[in-house]
Amino acid sequence: MDAWTLHPDRLLPADPAARGVARRLYDLTRDLPIVSPHGHVPTAMLLDDEPFADPTSLLLTPDHYVTRLLHASGVPLAELGVGQGPLSEADARRAWRHLCTHWSAYAGTPVRFWLESELVDVFGVTVRPSAETADAVYDTIAARLAEPGFRPRALFDRFDISFLATTDDPVDDLAAHAALAADPSFTGRVVPTFRPDRYLEVTAPAWADDVARLGEVAGVPTDTFSGWVAAMESRRAHFKEHGAVSADHSHVDPGTLDLDRADAERIYADALRGHVGTADGTALRRHMLLEQARMSADDGLTMTIHPGVRRNHHTPTFEQYGADVGADLPLEVSYTDHLRPMLERFGTSPGFTVVLFTLDETAFSRDIAPLAGFYPSVYVGAPWWFLDAPDAIRRWRAAVTETAGFSRTSGFIDDTRAFCSIPARHDMSRRLDAGFLAGLVAEHRLDEDEAAEIAVDLVVGRPAKAFGL
Amino acid sequence: MDAWTLHPDRLLPADPAARGVARRLYDLTRDLPIVSPHGHVPTAMLLDDEPFADPTSLLLTPDHYVTRLLHASGVPLAELGVGQGPLSEADARRAWRHLCTHWSAYAGTPVRFWLESELVDVFGVTVRPSAETADAVYDTIAARLAEPGFRPRALFDRFDISFLATTDDPVDDLAAHAALAADPSFTGRVVPTFRPDRYLEVTAPAWADDVARLGEVAGVPTDTFSGWVAAMESRRAHFKEHGAVSADHSHVDPGTLDLDRADAERIYADALRGHVGTADGTALRRHMLLEQARMSADDGLTMTIHPGVRRNHHTPTFEQYGADVGADLPLEVSYTDHLRPMLERFGTSPGFTVVLFTLDETAFSRDIAPLAGFYPSVYVGAPWWFLDAPDAIRRWRAAVTETAGFSRTSGFIDDTRAFCSIPARHDMSRRLDAGFLAGLVAEHRLDEDEAAEIAVDLVVGRPAKAFGL
Amino acid sequence: MDAWTLHPDRLLPADPAARGVARRLYDLTRDLPIVSPHGHVPTAMLLDDEPFADPTSLLLTPDHYVTRLLHASGVPLAELGVGQGPLSEADARRAWRHLCTHWSAYAGTPVRFWLESELVDVFGVTVRPSAETADAVYDTIAARLAEPGFRPRALFDRFDISFLATTDDPVDDLAAHAALAADPSFTGRVVPTFRPDRYLEVTAPAWADDVARLGEVAGVPTDTFSGWVAAMESRRAHFKEHGAVSADHSHVDPGTLDLDRADAERIYADALRGHVGTADGTALRRHMLLEQARMSADDGLTMTIHPGVRRNHHTPTFEQYGADVGADLPLEVSYTDHLRPMLERFGTSPGFTVVLFTLDETAFSRDIAPLAGFYPSVYVGAPWWFLDAPDAIRRWRAAVTETAGFSRTSGFIDDTRAFCSIPARHDMSRRLDAGFLAGLVAEHRLDEDEAAEIAVDLVVGRPAKAFGL
Repeated sequence: MDAWTLHPDRLLPADPAARGVARRLYDLTRDLPIVSPHGHVPTAMLLDDEPFADPTSLLLTPDHYVTRLLHASGVPLAELGVGQGPLSEADARRAWRHLCTHWSAYAGTPVRFWLESELVDVFGVTVRPSAETADAVYDTIAARLAEPGFRPRALFDRFDISFLATTDDPVDDLAAHAALAADPSFTGRVVPTFRPDRYLEVTAPAWADDVARLGEVAGVPTDTFSGWVAAMESRRAHFKEHGAVSADHSHVDPGTLDLDRADAERIYADALRGHVGTADGTALRRHMLLEQARMSADDGLTMTIHPGVRRNHHTPTFEQYGADVGADLPLEVSYTDHLRPMLERFGTSPGFTVVLFTLDETAFSRDIAPLAGFYPSVYVGAPWWFLDAPDAIRRWRAAVTETAGFSRTSGFIDDTRAFCSIPARHDMSRRLDAGFLAGLVAEHRLDEDEAAEIAVDLVVGRPAKAFGL
Repeated sequence: MDAWTLHPDRLLPADPAARGVARRLYDLTRDLPIVSPHGHVPTAMLLDDEPFADPTSLLLTPDHYVTRLLHASGVPLAELGVGQGPLSEADARRAWRHLCTHWSAYAGTPVRFWLESELVDVFGVTVRPSAETADAVYDTIAARLAEPGFRPRALFDRFDISFLATTDDPVDDLAAHAALAADPSFTGRVVPTFRPDRYLEVTAPAWADDVARLGEVAGVPTDTFSGWVAAMESRRAHFKEHGAVSADHSHVDPGTLDLDRADAERIYADALRGHVGTADGTALRRHMLLEQARMSADDGLTMTIHPGVRRNHHTPTFEQYGADVGADLPLEVSYTDHLRPMLERFGTSPGFTVVLFTLDETAFSRDIAPLAGFYPSVYVGAPWWFLDAPDAIRRWRAAVTETAGFSRTSGFIDDTRAFCSIPARHDMSRRLDAGFLAGLVAEHRLDEDEAAEIAVDLVVGRPAKAFGL
Repeated sequence: MDAWTLHPDRLLPADPAARGVARRLYDLTRDLPIVSPHGHVPTAMLLDDEPFADPTSLLLTPDHYVTRLLHASGVPLAELGVGQGPLSEADARRAWRHLCTHWSAYAGTPVRFWLESELVDVFGVTVRPSAETADAVYDTIAARLAEPGFRPRALFDRFDISFLATTDDPVDDLAAHAALAADPSFTGRVVPTFRPDRYLEVTAPAWADDVARLGEVAGVPTDTFSGWVAAMESRRAHFKEHGAVSADHSHVDPGTLDLDRADAERIYADALRGHVGTADGTALRRHMLLEQARMSADDGLTMTIHPGVRRNHHTPTFEQYGADVGADLPLEVSYTDHLRPMLERFGTSPGFTVVLFTLDETAFSRDIAPLAGFYPSVYVGAPWWFLDAPDAIRRWRAAVTETAGFSRTSGFIDDTRAFCSIPARHDMSRRLDAGFLAGLVAEHRLDEDEAAEIAVDLVVGRPAKAFGL
């Protein structure tokens, strides 16, 4: 069998008329540095720069994109190392064999594209994963991981990441970010992102304790709603000082609501006592999101909204393995009415920027593109989770471009915990954008010089614009 | 005019790069036997093996896919024989002429593909239907129907159907199935499907009588909810003894709900007295569906869910012609929250399997694929009714594959009353899957050897897996 | 740089197999006269036949399709002349420069297609708009506008518009229509459309005054619901006398509801006193729409329904600039249950016709096509606003054709205020239909002679059928 290689035209249009144009457009962007304004890479990984332990704990166990389809195929999460702490080599190999044995389960999925890019381009694997080749693939990667060139910082450099944002709790002291920024041997730009969700979920059992802790860290009592606002402002300022450019928000809906201050204080007080009803709790959460928008209009942190997820859908899995193991599921989302109170107030404010994401594709052409095509503050977010895949990305471009063009989109967002998949994810986006633009050129809807300018702008200009870089 | 023939590349991708691959993949599956795990062919037809009466009552009158578009075109259903009982030859010919005169109304529809396959491949028609050719086409088919090779069993053999499931009421004694199974001259495998919908619709006027009859047939009093459960278990066992592999469920939404047994009994008692409110009635119906899931987890009957239909939308049509005449219409469907109570309890149970269908395409990428990509019990059902058409099937594959792959899909389901359309429906599916896989190969997202394995697995392996064959 | 020209194959499929067929089909329709059964061109423009003032006030300022994306790009609407009254040449030029400077913002949008068609085909512009060419483009168009061949009537003739419907308030005396019809020097057919929305919005502050005025104009007291009905009937008759063929309806949902006359009268009386609740107000509005349907079944005016728009989403913009400036946004729409009361009563009435539109694409395959595939009175409306764009139109055809075919669609509707864009909009539709049909031919789903017949029917036959021309 010949060595396993990746075709240079992967994901480019098969149609010969468009493929030639797509190749030329892709050539303009393939080697541009990576800007990653939203994701979940741990800062400590780059600060400590320890070698990665093994292929499984790097590429398989922590990535719910990978584990969920194995779980659906009948492999218990424990067999994949989920929730098992550090793995013995035997356990790591056994988990890895599950992945390779079920390789065909990934056919047609983006995980397949990312993994094969990682295996071939990053680690130099030359055989296709299968039950037979599992150990050989494991050995190849394990050998690489022992080399200095495969430590986190070396890969960071090799991946050519010019900007990386992490995602952080408002009470985080950001010491790791400070240390990394102060380290003269690391020249990358790695910044935190303000993610205050838990402090807005006023009906959650842990909420009262969470806001008490927020108050302590901020040095501002949070026993009133006004105190909550002041504490938030203080922590946002702390994040800005450490380089943050955005605040990220994910609730079950993207509702915003203007409450009288007195009503907000009353519901807040009820919530602190644990006596808040669902309707009041929802109203306060939506009002809090409006307050976050007001703060963003003031401090300039771009607001990103990732709504509509039913977290931990399967309670037994949550109880055994915890959160973020692949059991979060999409819900219906609409934006037009939900965002109206926010956009009435800040939609045309010069300092305000908001990027909208969805797991419900119906919002692309119906809500998000029309909003971004009118409000100067609104950007169309890149396809997110479940939709960060070739055909979905094409559907997204086709759904939003005709109303919002290219200039109202945010640039690609990888939103990943899987560090080694970052280049493959951005590469996928660049290939697909080249293909989409080539399709417009092939149908004489755009001239190639215009398409070339847009292709580069999508990688360089749009994230800079949407995230104020 | 040349003879009317069907092009061998029908429905394969027009793009030359993909078409060659598609042809090779289709060649692997075109002649494989047909597995039909859900449909509506009457068992008696195969048991009695009487010749079909005429072209109209075989191909036109009973098929609401065909009659609805003629009705929309202004032809009253009575003119098509609907609700008219046995047709005189004059009436049958007149109805047939309506079909041929309106042939262009089917342009671009799957009915066109199925009918032309039936006319040419099954009956050897050589002229395209039109006002001018209507009688000639009628005569050709009528002549064939008089031949022994066109009796039901002969066609069953010729269609190479290796497994066929019918759809049956829980009170059915399944005598026809028993007789067919006991007939040494028939070697096909024809099994019943348990379809208990009417016994869950507790607010329907006929419900109390229906459950009384259920109790009689089961020999278990159904004057309590516990009795209802026991009667259901008894009838499911009867169906299993007669070869059933699945239970089919179709309600206005796919809600499931866990009720205390005392609440269930109270609402059940209210319902028997005809004094149940809408909210209580819905709650009990959803709890009953959860009970059906519990039974499926116990007895292994695969659960298929076909929700979201407004039945008999046009009351005057229902009053004149009855149900199933083309006046059922789709509703919005979401699954994530509706199925949560069921999947919390049975989602990872080894013996439980559920296949999800929808008429609302928004559920493909948002609900169904994400659920099937995590829960080992959940399979993505094939596109159903209104969506069992080339472009819709392509949208479906594009919407679900990136999240659920191919292995989490159920295999093709024809769900048809139109016996002679079964080969055409499965052929359409095989052509489209070959084309979809060829597209992945042409874009270098999949190797052709992998695509070949998947193409065969979709026809052979998936239905066997999802329906426990 | 070579002269800016438009490629003859614009929007035709890039795939060579389909492109040849598409060219032949497009050749059959490209020069057919334009039938425009719904739009917003002012009648007075054609009656007065004054020269257009300048490029900006003709092509930019009044067209919210154009201004909204400039607004999103950071250009205040005032800078574009919106709400500024007649523009000085300096202001007109400055606004025009904004358009040309932001030309790339339209890449991939239909506005780009329409504008380039207008600039090149109508006005003979030979350079691509940009910051550098803005003045030259302005000058070219301004020079043309001074010529007699660019007056409204001359363009009307040149555009070959055989039928044009305007949109009018029920209290309009239609004097302009009468004068135009009586003018022997104008031979075009220009008719009004009955648009009674405001008289159905019973909770709107101005409603009571509006219906009082309606009563005055109709000469029928509107102090009761029965009076309202009689006044409506009277005004509809007035419109019919002036050539109207349809009545247009746009509410937040397409709900219809049968109320007892006593309930309708009671709510109506409450509404006149300004004491109507939201639920009652919605019920009466839906009942009024049902009454409009009853009137359409009686008088034969085709009913067009354009639901699901949140008007004037950004109140500050509305207060500064008024309505119709690009701040209307789409909402979710479903039809199946909403229209049931109407279709139960009139769905099979011979004289009744209704055309359904949506801004929410989910309704295409789920609601609209299934309804039009059963009810002889229901037609699938062309993609509307936000969706009147190449990829959306393709999605629409793909979504509706498999269920409703071609014959149940209404023909193209331009729905535009932008007079000069009418030829480009119809041309876009013809190109896309040629391409869609060519795709079916290339996949051997349709013979080319059938496709040819359909292509012409979509331009000539469908609008005539759906609007009773």
